[in-house]
Amino acid sequence: MDQITIHPIGVIHSPYNESKAIPIQGRFKDDVEAFVELKNEYAKGLKDLDKFSHAILLYHFHKSDKENIEGKPFLEDEVHGVFAIRTPHRPNHIGLSVVKIKRIQGNKLYFTQVDMIDATPLLDIKPYVKYFDSREDVTSGWLDKHLKNGKIPDRTIIE
Amino acid sequence: MDQITIHPIGVIHSPYNESKAIPIQGRFKDDVEAFVELKNEYAKGLKDLDKFSHAILLYHFHKSDKENIEGKPFLEDEVHGVFAIRTPHRPNHIGLSVVKIKRIQGNKLYFTQVDMIDATPLLDIKPYVKYFDSREDVTSGWLDKHLKNGKIPDRTIIE
Repeated sequence: MDQITIHPIGVIHSPYNESKAIPIQGRFKDDVEAFVELKNEYAKGLKDLDKFSHAILLYHFHKSDKENIEGKPFLEDEVHGVFAIRTPHRPNHIGLSVVKIKRIQGNKLYFTQVDMIDATPLLDIKPYVKYFDSREDVTSGWLDKHLKNGKIPDRTIIE
Repeated sequence: MDQITIHPIGVIHSPYNESKAIPIQGRFKDDVEAFVELKNEYAKGLKDLDKFSHAILLYHFHKSDKENIEGKPFLEDEVHGVFAIRTPHRPNHIGLSVVKIKRIQGNKLYFTQVDMIDATPLLDIKPYVKYFDSREDVTSGWLDKHLKNGKIPDRTIIE
């Protein structure tokens, strides 16, 4: 199979309406709230997600029209393979964020730990399960020097 | 935009060649090894990923032709919304697994914590970053009763 067709199941409404001022990861600006608006036919799929503290959102990096194989991440000026960085300019343009669930109302899921731009097309929501998705003894390559001991790097907010 | 076209960037070669005997999550059978074979044009994208201990694989649940809005997870007989379970039978059929990187050779990435079936089309590889992807104080809804205190449930291997 050489091509796969997917479709947005909803849209992310975010206070970030341009690339400026978005944190590189939502945890760096923890108080900002956004929401997912699902197409009505998917609303029932949210049943029982309100009992989870976190969710994984998969979405389409719709503002990128580049598919790079290597690139410089925002945090430093070294070149790395695209699969060692989290750039939007990647094959298939699928974005992934772990977010904190605040509440669910009808077809809307409100969350914090936001790092998506407004109007981002949503592809999937998965419940975040600590036993499946958290890991101990993690080493994070070129990122460790920027993030170790919980420090927040200087270049976390895109200006 | 109503349709998005994506394409496999490679394939996952797994010892699981039918749904039977696959663990519901790879950590339940930690010693099994599989590998990703990237299309040659993406091999350079792996540069520096070998310095990371874990990766997130996104792939296509190519064996599923159902898009359910609610479903029963493997672990229990209660019905939940599709966004509160990790079933393959979901909108857009995108799978996500955190895996442990063993080694990288050319266009091949060898890993453990395998829960994909052989010949699964790969969509993306992201470096796993503890600070972005791990969370403390997680509650996991209906799953907590099955997994709490690190216990491994009886129904973890699909027979």
